[in-house]
Amino acid sequence: MANYCEMDRAILEAEQKKLQAEYGKYQKMDLKLDMSRGKPSPTQMDLSLDMLTVSAYKDNTGVDARNYGNLEGLPEARAYFAQLQQVKPEEVIVGGNSSLQLMYMMINMAWEKGMADSKTAWKRCETIKFLCPVPGYDRHFRITEEFGFELISVPMLPTGPDMDEVEKWVKDPSVKGIWCVPKYSNPDGYTYSDDTVKRLANMQTAAPDFTIFWDNAYFVHHLGKKHDEVLNILDECRAAGNENRPLLFCSTSKITFAGSGVCAMAASPENIKAITAYLFPMTIGFDKINQLRHVRFLEQEGGIELFMTKHAAIIAPKFSKLIEILHKNFDDCGPIACWTEPNGGYFISFYTLDGCAKRTVELCKQAGVVLTGAGAAYPYGIDPTDHHIRIAPTFPPIEELETAAELLSICAKLSTVEKLLEA
Amino acid sequence: MANYCEMDRAILEAEQKKLQAEYGKYQKMDLKLDMSRGKPSPTQMDLSLDMLTVSAYKDNTGVDARNYGNLEGLPEARAYFAQLQQVKPEEVIVGGNSSLQLMYMMINMAWEKGMADSKTAWKRCETIKFLCPVPGYDRHFRITEEFGFELISVPMLPTGPDMDEVEKWVKDPSVKGIWCVPKYSNPDGYTYSDDTVKRLANMQTAAPDFTIFWDNAYFVHHLGKKHDEVLNILDECRAAGNENRPLLFCSTSKITFAGSGVCAMAASPENIKAITAYLFPMTIGFDKINQLRHVRFLEQEGGIELFMTKHAAIIAPKFSKLIEILHKNFDDCGPIACWTEPNGGYFISFYTLDGCAKRTVELCKQAGVVLTGAGAAYPYGIDPTDHHIRIAPTFPPIEELETAAELLSICAKLSTVEKLLEA
Repeated sequence: MANYCEMDRAILEAEQKKLQAEYGKYQKMDLKLDMSRGKPSPTQMDLSLDMLTVSAYKDNTGVDARNYGNLEGLPEARAYFAQLQQVKPEEVIVGGNSSLQLMYMMINMAWEKGMADSKTAWKRCETIKFLCPVPGYDRHFRITEEFGFELISVPMLPTGPDMDEVEKWVKDPSVKGIWCVPKYSNPDGYTYSDDTVKRLANMQTAAPDFTIFWDNAYFVHHLGKKHDEVLNILDECRAAGNENRPLLFCSTSKITFAGSGVCAMAASPENIKAITAYLFPMTIGFDKINQLRHVRFLEQEGGIELFMTKHAAIIAPKFSKLIEILHKNFDDCGPIACWTEPNGGYFISFYTLDGCAKRTVELCKQAGVVLTGAGAAYPYGIDPTDHHIRIAPTFPPIEELETAAELLSICAKLSTVEKLLEA
Repeated sequence: MANYCEMDRAILEAEQKKLQAEYGKYQKMDLKLDMSRGKPSPTQMDLSLDMLTVSAYKDNTGVDARNYGNLEGLPEARAYFAQLQQVKPEEVIVGGNSSLQLMYMMINMAWEKGMADSKTAWKRCETIKFLCPVPGYDRHFRITEEFGFELISVPMLPTGPDMDEVEKWVKDPSVKGIWCVPKYSNPDGYTYSDDTVKRLANMQTAAPDFTIFWDNAYFVHHLGKKHDEVLNILDECRAAGNENRPLLFCSTSKITFAGSGVCAMAASPENIKAITAYLFPMTIGFDKINQLRHVRFLEQEGGIELFMTKHAAIIAPKFSKLIEILHKNFDDCGPIACWTEPNGGYFISFYTLDGCAKRTVELCKQAGVVLTGAGAAYPYGIDPTDHHIRIAPTFPPIEELETAAELLSICAKLSTVEKLLEA
């Protein structure tokens, strides 16, 4: 192996033949692997099987969790999530099984009614722009696309969104918000620096109702001993006189069961009041039994931090193996690929040469390994330089992950060679 | 006791004094009873305690209910609810814990996107009118009020909504739908006749996207051996060439746990496709573990019909006791009150003389018994003749219900006497 960028045409063609032969072997293996989504593996979910027999139904304030009521969530669950999010119980709403749905509802609320500091409902604004740090989470972008917002890409840096860009954009009053995954970001695995958080909290926004959608999806999802930490955005915004600016979200989807977890949000008291009024006509309340089931199970397991080390024990070796294979296959090849090596979260970003990501994903698919579609991590599904691939290593067993990582490496090299031969 | 309507002024005043003395006794009892909502009692919910330890997580098609996916619901749960609603599994979406939320979403979808047969999204229509059979369910009316629809009251008859009125209204193209509780209606407990269902299915509506919100909330909620039955609205609409007209809803909120049940909807394949597309940006899926928990528990209990007889054994005596007390207190008083005596459901409608309902509820409240606000069962909370009170007998223990029924009788008589003395 040698530096691809220094190969002449003949050597590149020889390399292509060699890679094609290797690729052919994988094609014959009749692989059927799906690494398209960030799903926990069955082994991870087995950690929570005891939760299925937690039979509590009265919370520690005496509320019967089985019956109607308590739109803001079971008091015991509100207190629990308040402590997790380092806010007050009255600043918390505990919801159903989907934090994405809560986020959708909040955009819908802003659209129909406006937020606490809005002068008018967003539907009455001629244009709404929304900041999307890229690469980012496709399902975030999809919600704001659904409402017809103009999605503005802002580069993600290892310290969070490029704040110079963000501060420039928020001078435009039609820029109404930003999607943030502040810790172990999807898909890079980056964590916002203290400076980034403070700038987000303090920046002057032309829109009085500029809203930070703070999706702390991976708040306790460390892979090893090195834990990233992120400042409390509600505290920072409050200190800056902007306490209505952030909506904080978290969930247990990647703690207990992906589809049957509990989500929660936190916000200023004024926001909580407005949100509760908005939710009132929609439902009598969320599933409080599942809320209580979660609190009691996580307590019984010795707390969420301890419990998450069991997840780390299962998934950290997968991240390590993937990264090891990428090093083995690319370290000597010159600057044709790079990737992130996060301390937590669910993803790794893999970057090819410009113009090679789609082709790489296509080659993988033709050999039976489905990756997240290239471009998915960008607004409208379009990666302008076609260089990003999101890798989700948690779901497959480690042997399958190894196969997929080797195949990915071959495909990335093949598409690189094709690209270089085109030039 | 004698016929109030035949009493002269002096006798009425004597009766008033007597009633005031009786009322005073209740005031001294320091009662604190809440009969405002149709909530199952703890004893009823105890019937489902074994559900809390159902630990299944793989459905009979092999789907791991713990993970993401299956937006339309767990295949096993879809099949189960299909059989309950007498439709095909592919015509079913199984949701979360709140059928009200599903209904809200459907109105929201019609508002933003339109229904399958809409020419335009409802938000683009100058006026939207919605038919509300009265008395009806306040939370239905509240949803359509929230969206700014004009709510049109249509009288409920023992056979369902007054179809002559309905057929007259649907000639107006701005009339877009109707709220229906077809079996054991909230609050009268009436069941739609075959003729009513057929007319709803066959009527010519000026709006091509006229939608029947068919909330079959009490579909298996019989009180005794006499079971009301209602025709399948999807079959009837299909036979009439209007298969996109109805959206069918049901839930287990009053079967297992009021706040932690499972809801489902059924509709034409074209509607299901549109609804799934609408739900896609909002959530990855509903809580499939709770769906599976419900199916397996109800099967383990020998089926839903058998299980519901246990509920009937608890609540039928409450209905009987309430009706017995009303007969005892009003049979000799002339036509000053009447009430419904349903074969199922959760409510009884109590009708006073015109202008006496609010005062009756107020008097009850002052003596410590909270009833549903008078007028709540009408659009905008206004009962034009102020004569209807919804009684929810399921939640309180039977002794408390007896006390409340006696007090209600006194209060209704007191307000009647006041009214007659005014005249």
